Amino acid sequence: MTSSASRAPGDLDASARAARLFTPRRVAIVGASDRSAWSRLVHEALRRSGIVVELVNPRAQVVHGVATVPTLTAIDGPVDLAYVMTPAAAVLDTVVESGQAKIPSLIVLSAGFGESGASGRGLERAIGETVRAQGQTMLGPNTLGYVNFTTNTFLYPAGNGLRDVSPGSVALVTQSGALGGMMTGYAAAHAIGISFLCATGNEADLTVSDIIDYAVDDPATKVIGVFAEAIRNPAGLRRAARRALEAGKPIVMLKAGRSELAARTAATHTGSIVGDDAVVDAVLAQDGIIRVDSLEVLVGTAGVLAKVGPTPVRGLTVAAISGGVCDLAADGCDRLGIPLPQFRDDTRARLSEVLPDFTGAHNPLDLTGAIVRHPRLLADVLTTIADDGQADMVLCQENLGKRSRPTESIINGAKAMHEAAIPAYLISATGEGLTEQQKQSLAEFDIPYLGGGLEIILSGLARQRWWAQQRRHALAQPTTAPRPRPQVEPGRGKWSEARTSDLLSSWSVPLVPRRVVRSAAAAVAAFEEFGGPVVLKIVSPDILHKTEIGGVRLDVTDTASVAAAYEAIVDSASRLRPDAVIDGVLVSPMRPPALELLVGVTTDPQWGQVLTVGLGGTWTEIFKDVSTRLLPVAAGDVRTMLTSLRSAPLLLGARNSRPADLDALSEVIAHIGALAVACGPALSAIEVNPIRVDGSQIEVLDAVALWADEPLAAAL
Amino acid sequence: MTSSASRAPGDLDASARAARLFTPRRVAIVGASDRSAWSRLVHEALRRSGIVVELVNPRAQVVHGVATVPTLTAIDGPVDLAYVMTPAAAVLDTVVESGQAKIPSLIVLSAGFGESGASGRGLERAIGETVRAQGQTMLGPNTLGYVNFTTNTFLYPAGNGLRDVSPGSVALVTQSGALGGMMTGYAAAHAIGISFLCATGNEADLTVSDIIDYAVDDPATKVIGVFAEAIRNPAGLRRAARRALEAGKPIVMLKAGRSELAARTAATHTGSIVGDDAVVDAVLAQDGIIRVDSLEVLVGTAGVLAKVGPTPVRGLTVAAISGGVCDLAADGCDRLGIPLPQFRDDTRARLSEVLPDFTGAHNPLDLTGAIVRHPRLLADVLTTIADDGQADMVLCQENLGKRSRPTESIINGAKAMHEAAIPAYLISATGEGLTEQQKQSLAEFDIPYLGGGLEIILSGLARQRWWAQQRRHALAQPTTAPRPRPQVEPGRGKWSEARTSDLLSSWSVPLVPRRVVRSAAAAVAAFEEFGGPVVLKIVSPDILHKTEIGGVRLDVTDTASVAAAYEAIVDSASRLRPDAVIDGVLVSPMRPPALELLVGVTTDPQWGQVLTVGLGGTWTEIFKDVSTRLLPVAAGDVRTMLTSLRSAPLLLGARNSRPADLDALSEVIAHIGALAVACGPALSAIEVNPIRVDGSQIEVLDAVALWADEPLAAAL
Repeated sequence: MTSSASRAPGDLDASARAARLFTPRRVAIVGASDRSAWSRLVHEALRRSGIVVELVNPRAQVVHGVATVPTLTAIDGPVDLAYVMTPAAAVLDTVVESGQAKIPSLIVLSAGFGESGASGRGLERAIGETVRAQGQTMLGPNTLGYVNFTTNTFLYPAGNGLRDVSPGSVALVTQSGALGGMMTGYAAAHAIGISFLCATGNEADLTVSDIIDYAVDDPATKVIGVFAEAIRNPAGLRRAARRALEAGKPIVMLKAGRSELAARTAATHTGSIVGDDAVVDAVLAQDGIIRVDSLEVLVGTAGVLAKVGPTPVRGLTVAAISGGVCDLAADGCDRLGIPLPQFRDDTRARLSEVLPDFTGAHNPLDLTGAIVRHPRLLADVLTTIADDGQADMVLCQENLGKRSRPTESIINGAKAMHEAAIPAYLISATGEGLTEQQKQSLAEFDIPYLGGGLEIILSGLARQRWWAQQRRHALAQPTTAPRPRPQVEPGRGKWSEARTSDLLSSWSVPLVPRRVVRSAAAAVAAFEEFGGPVVLKIVSPDILHKTEIGGVRLDVTDTASVAAAYEAIVDSASRLRPDAVIDGVLVSPMRPPALELLVGVTTDPQWGQVLTVGLGGTWTEIFKDVSTRLLPVAAGDVRTMLTSLRSAPLLLGARNSRPADLDALSEVIAHIGALAVACGPALSAIEVNPIRVDGSQIEVLDAVALWADEPLAAAL
Repeated sequence: MTSSASRAPGDLDASARAARLFTPRRVAIVGASDRSAWSRLVHEALRRSGIVVELVNPRAQVVHGVATVPTLTAIDGPVDLAYVMTPAAAVLDTVVESGQAKIPSLIVLSAGFGESGASGRGLERAIGETVRAQGQTMLGPNTLGYVNFTTNTFLYPAGNGLRDVSPGSVALVTQSGALGGMMTGYAAAHAIGISFLCATGNEADLTVSDIIDYAVDDPATKVIGVFAEAIRNPAGLRRAARRALEAGKPIVMLKAGRSELAARTAATHTGSIVGDDAVVDAVLAQDGIIRVDSLEVLVGTAGVLAKVGPTPVRGLTVAAISGGVCDLAADGCDRLGIPLPQFRDDTRARLSEVLPDFTGAHNPLDLTGAIVRHPRLLADVLTTIADDGQADMVLCQENLGKRSRPTESIINGAKAMHEAAIPAYLISATGEGLTEQQKQSLAEFDIPYLGGGLEIILSGLARQRWWAQQRRHALAQPTTAPRPRPQVEPGRGKWSEARTSDLLSSWSVPLVPRRVVRSAAAAVAAFEEFGGPVVLKIVSPDILHKTEIGGVRLDVTDTASVAAAYEAIVDSASRLRPDAVIDGVLVSPMRPPALELLVGVTTDPQWGQVLTVGLGGTWTEIFKDVSTRLLPVAAGDVRTMLTSLRSAPLLLGARNSRPADLDALSEVIAHIGALAVACGPALSAIEVNPIRVDGSQIEVLDAVALWADEPLAAAL
């Protein structure tokens, strides 16, 4: 029940702080008023929930037909929670008063804070600090509150369909309160049960991360669905996500703001390929959080996962009353990588007895129009395919009457589903949603039903398989150790290739041999030492794009050309960049073509140091074929990153290329990551581009580092 | 009203043949029986549709309480259509009899034909041929029929919700009858009106293409939604698609079978990159058909297009009662490329008067909780943002009561939408579907509503923009001319690089200079003639993968090495492939690195000759970055193909590469396409890989041709 991270003694952990909100027996509504629709709705909701209510209003003696009290401190006996809807300007005073009244928890509905500008932001910060100083817990401001469907507790101005929701095992956490009703509405339409809905609003105190942490401990919750606009507590989210993985409770998240983050300008080359939203993608994936892009998929996926549990589906059988649905299922499973095993021969033989006029029973199985004539056909088919043993789940698409009781066929089928050797569910072809009659039929005849329609269900099963793999991988590793303190002396500004190479070399990263020379004669000597064609490059802290000013000569093959190349480079640099400090010319052996990788570390303002790897120079950029992960990383993580590239076949030896020594390469890249960690937040970026890989020969050919003149605080 | 393609005189065109089905006044049900649920449902549907019904049953004198006739020929007076549900074995006799009875049209419900094996396929073919020989029109076999919602005509065993559908302007055409009810069910749940639903079944006579052709002429239809498992008449589909473009009626198609086509083995390299399903993608796109992957998106997109019409949305304004929905709209528009123009300053000023406590009004516009308190706020905001002039459509997300009449705010808002300067619609956040109360509210208060939920609506608008662009492009060109007859003498088997190069050269395709030599001395002479480094390659019709047997030497720079390379190549080829006929060694100048393109023509068994272009050798394959189009093509088409590649920036001069002369390159590639057309179906494939492009220097470096020993009939 405790978080993995260490805490100051006596502090409540996130989950325990949030838990105080969820068990109030006596609630005070501050700012209750007959003129407010919100006040009336909240009051009604609390009364219906069986909670003792006190109405606080200093000016009206009776509100909603009930006698009021003028202040929180005037209430006799303990109050568990204050639901605040006073004007924004009065909220801070109310919070202070709630502290005096020793009320442990608050929900603040009032708006006009961070969302309305600078002064609101200041006020919001003050409220949050006051709450924490008083040892309280707060949801909001600018929130609607929560509904606990398991206990039928509504601390929420419940309109619009919240009463339709059935209790279940999906927790919904949202920063946008208005979305809460839309999400639960969708859930109700698809028979997806909800444990609780919690809207966190502006999050001056509790954040989505804290509520996720609470949901991990909530026995009613199996899956956590989250709508987030901003992650205000990245470290808390990562801790909660880790605990959710340990508890086997998947998190499905719709993280909005892709367009905004994608538009942020990036300082480095790697940054421009990755983009800040891709960092969010990478971090969420790393922590096993399933990221989705629409409300339907958010709630639908959570519903699927809550029903089918954490064990990944290894093989699926689909039966449908329409050949078209069978085609769609086959296409979907193929696209999503869900195996559709074929039936055993004896299963086929049994099916041909059950299904008349069948030429060959295969998966997905077309039940044809015959199902209309034979009320036992569906049940017999279900039993037969569930016995087959090749698959571990059956989905059956059949029409449930919209305004009539289920057919005998479905009633018999539902019994067969319950008795089947493996889980079997009725599904709908589309995400149309259930009528009241259909919901009633499901309940009355106890029909196992998976909501959302074929498309959402199949993608949900694919996401479950992905999640189980991420989980296995993450749990196989120890909890991320505390980040080591910086060990490398920080630099300033931009570092040239030569200086960055020295740093890499001191950290035992393998580099191509190199000599920095300051005369044509020394360049020739280096050429003779290397005994073959060489490369010459300008060395200057002021010239990062060496090619553009004629600062690079490739494949120079004789002494006269080496001397000439030296002079030409220095001359060109002095002419085109007269202000640049020139430290010499770097001479290295010219390597024959081989695989080239980009390895970059950048610093995300929110998440901290991020490692990115990609293959193939220009093509990496064109196709954005990179893999990204938060530092620190182990060599095994890097191996996973490399093999997840679309261009991974080239590393593995496709197209007659020599297979890369993946273990050695992963070690080198992980070691570069460790160097960045050792540099700490003073390092803004390091870009190693390219690393040349020829089998087990691995060498850095070029690199550059950028130091933050104002170091960012490490986010983690 | 006539198709673009020429016909035999006296033939009805596809549309007119189909049209005969849709206006029956008297229908005979053949095989009517009290024991059949299908019979009862069809009989009831016909009676309700006001159609005169005759029941044909030779054994029962009364069925469904009505006197029967024993045969079709025994019916007095003309019958417009026979609805056939006799056992499969009796259907051919029924068809013959319907011809004797001079019944122009048939719908055949009976199953047990092509779907059940070889004998069924033969029977089905015989039925189709008989129907055509008798000058009739048939839907099926194995179909349910059609519903014309505009005229309230049900020739369909209507159960499950078909009665909920409102008349409208989306035609739905499906090969799977069972899907028909699911599609119309989804439409009804989202207030999407349907003109007609037609299920085509096994298509022994009429195909989806014919029904699309009919829908183009149907005045009630504005958009055509299609579910297809197989395209049985590719030429007919292309003709109908062209007519739909001319008429401004978008076609949205869910073409199943991606997984099956993707799995087909491909004979050539290009084929393995493209895959047969990618050809379907390319053909549909080329003809302006919007391809989608789920039933929800199929029906939802058709609904959006039917409401918003053929003019593409240039700028969108979104207003929502939830900041979360605003975020999702911003992300969606960004992802889909839909412009969200910002408001003019005076609009912002007007909005700040309407919306209290607002710090800055931007698009998407958050209406906040204030909307609950002010019943005119929504109307005022809508009028203001519609007047802004930067956008040409407004979407407004607000909750319509599920079990209560609309709020005053929405009623006022609906009036403002009707009066707004630009089209404005109420939308839902999710695809949850409408309750009966909500549908009633929409009708009663005449609320302009766009169904499907935010995600489907935005993707629908993006697809509309794509469609409008394809349409403009296609209509700017004349109808594809009849394919010219083959002009090139066909070959057999596989052709070597040398022989393929001769063919290209004779067709004036630019090639790198080359000499085929048969001695080391001749190789040296060629080297001296070219005056610089050369490439040597084996010439043998039996050796297509030259590198694998040591048959290629690159960058040979002096006479001794040229002679040695010649000997080594011939020696290696003789040793490793002793059975191969060796025609000599090809010597060409060695070109410095530049952009390299793959150009391939393959033959799709269904669609005919297909041109594929891609950039970058290995990377083309890894990232499947190719563009595909049916032949013939004009140079302008090729230019579009090239610029649609993800790697197009390289062609345009990114990363310091010389920009390609796109016009010249497009001409060369179109010319290769014309050569393939001139070769006709005897050419199975030609692969030009690479074409080297350095600015305006364009040269084929290597090529190979495959001839079909049994030429495929041209599909078009």
